Amino acid sequence: MVTTPQQLRELVAAGEWRQPTAGILDDFQQANLVIVPAAQAWDLLLFCVRNPKVCPLLAVGEPGEYLLSAGNTRFDVRSMLPRYRVWHHGELVDEPYDLKQHWRDDAVTFLLGCSHTFDGPLRRAGIPVSHQAPPVYITNIPCVTAGKIGGPMAVSMRPVHHSKIAVATGVTARYASGHGMPVHYGSPEAIGISDITAPDFGVYPGLEEGYVPVFWACGVTPQIVLPPLKPEWMCSHYPGHMLVLDDSVDFFSLQQG
Amino acid sequence: MVTTPQQLRELVAAGEWRQPTAGILDDFQQANLVIVPAAQAWDLLLFCVRNPKVCPLLAVGEPGEYLLSAGNTRFDVRSMLPRYRVWHHGELVDEPYDLKQHWRDDAVTFLLGCSHTFDGPLRRAGIPVSHQAPPVYITNIPCVTAGKIGGPMAVSMRPVHHSKIAVATGVTARYASGHGMPVHYGSPEAIGISDITAPDFGVYPGLEEGYVPVFWACGVTPQIVLPPLKPEWMCSHYPGHMLVLDDSVDFFSLQQG
Repeated sequence: MVTTPQQLRELVAAGEWRQPTAGILDDFQQANLVIVPAAQAWDLLLFCVRNPKVCPLLAVGEPGEYLLSAGNTRFDVRSMLPRYRVWHHGELVDEPYDLKQHWRDDAVTFLLGCSHTFDGPLRRAGIPVSHQAPPVYITNIPCVTAGKIGGPMAVSMRPVHHSKIAVATGVTARYASGHGMPVHYGSPEAIGISDITAPDFGVYPGLEEGYVPVFWACGVTPQIVLPPLKPEWMCSHYPGHMLVLDDSVDFFSLQQG
Repeated sequence: MVTTPQQLRELVAAGEWRQPTAGILDDFQQANLVIVPAAQAWDLLLFCVRNPKVCPLLAVGEPGEYLLSAGNTRFDVRSMLPRYRVWHHGELVDEPYDLKQHWRDDAVTFLLGCSHTFDGPLRRAGIPVSHQAPPVYITNIPCVTAGKIGGPMAVSMRPVHHSKIAVATGVTARYASGHGMPVHYGSPEAIGISDITAPDFGVYPGLEEGYVPVFWACGVTPQIVLPPLKPEWMCSHYPGHMLVLDDSVDFFSLQQG
């Protein structure tokens, strides 16, 4: 039983935890990862700033920096996420459990908030969510372009009983660092999702009678919009396999307000 | 009597409004300005991201772009603020009413939220504030450094009756694009302000019996931390003389959550 984020990060770094991080430590800030060469960093930073619900920035590193701080957590970005993805020229070449052999001196790390972050607050508001990694879909909602970077938003989905939709909206609106309030309720087709049972990533949890699919912006989006630009090199977390930080769910969302 | 932000911007562009923008159109998003050469833009963008309460980003331009959009407003950044400041190699060289003769092809515009933005919500919550530009002080509170950019935070001050401090905090916490909740209450000395009656910019409104000075992070900060680095060229708004956008106070603050 993992009881603290630090313990989880140590297990991960030792190769003893390779699972998703949904359903555990859900009262702590969890984070998406994207790493690009310094030459692409300006466009990506601008993309994050222009799409704050999609890419809520928690930390940005200096070129080559892999020992990073976010809030009160110091971590090695190369080894403290359970799994990674690596692209060369837009082609997925590896899905390793460690980034050390892939690291570059010009690598700029972007750490983005994750919707796992509000699973705890939703639970305490009477809206329990699945302990499996939430399903993630590529939509037809366009992101705001920055330089060459643009394209469709990825979203995560949680089924919410129709009587609880306002509560789910109100609770998640408080957590900008968890992507904030939903971007869509109801019809998946309206946002370009043709088959709700077949997510691009994660696990479809089913939709019982009376439940409505509710969609939040997702930090997997950079993994969708960057590879078509064929950057020489880029890395990310493996969807659902997040960095878990020591600060509580409220910490980062309160930084802004 | 100016009744819309568009009307104000037209008066400003025509040279017919050169005053501060505090106390007018206080239900609209107002904005600070800082413009640097493209070579300095990465460090400044990172500084804004690392100091979101000081520099809440509303828009960032492409190099040379002066017709910009922020939310639903399209504006000419060279002429639609009442007054500007221009530095060469860290030395203040001009405080013009128009930037056209100073413009450069590599100029990157940063538009940052302003605390005038929550004067309307404060007023409606029973906390009227002065119609004069609020006093702005340079403190000893350090900003988070980004590249070479670091230094002390500037703050604006509003006197609040002690019975209303919680309300003032709660109201402004909702407006990330107005710098959010205060950074300090009470003793000016505790944050390095030796004489509350002598602000660095703006007008000291007095402090009546029972009133407490309340301090919010201020978008004048880039004008404090950038010139010591002696950038070849930079521009800003003149303190208190803001861009006023067409969107209401709630619009930008709700983008994040």
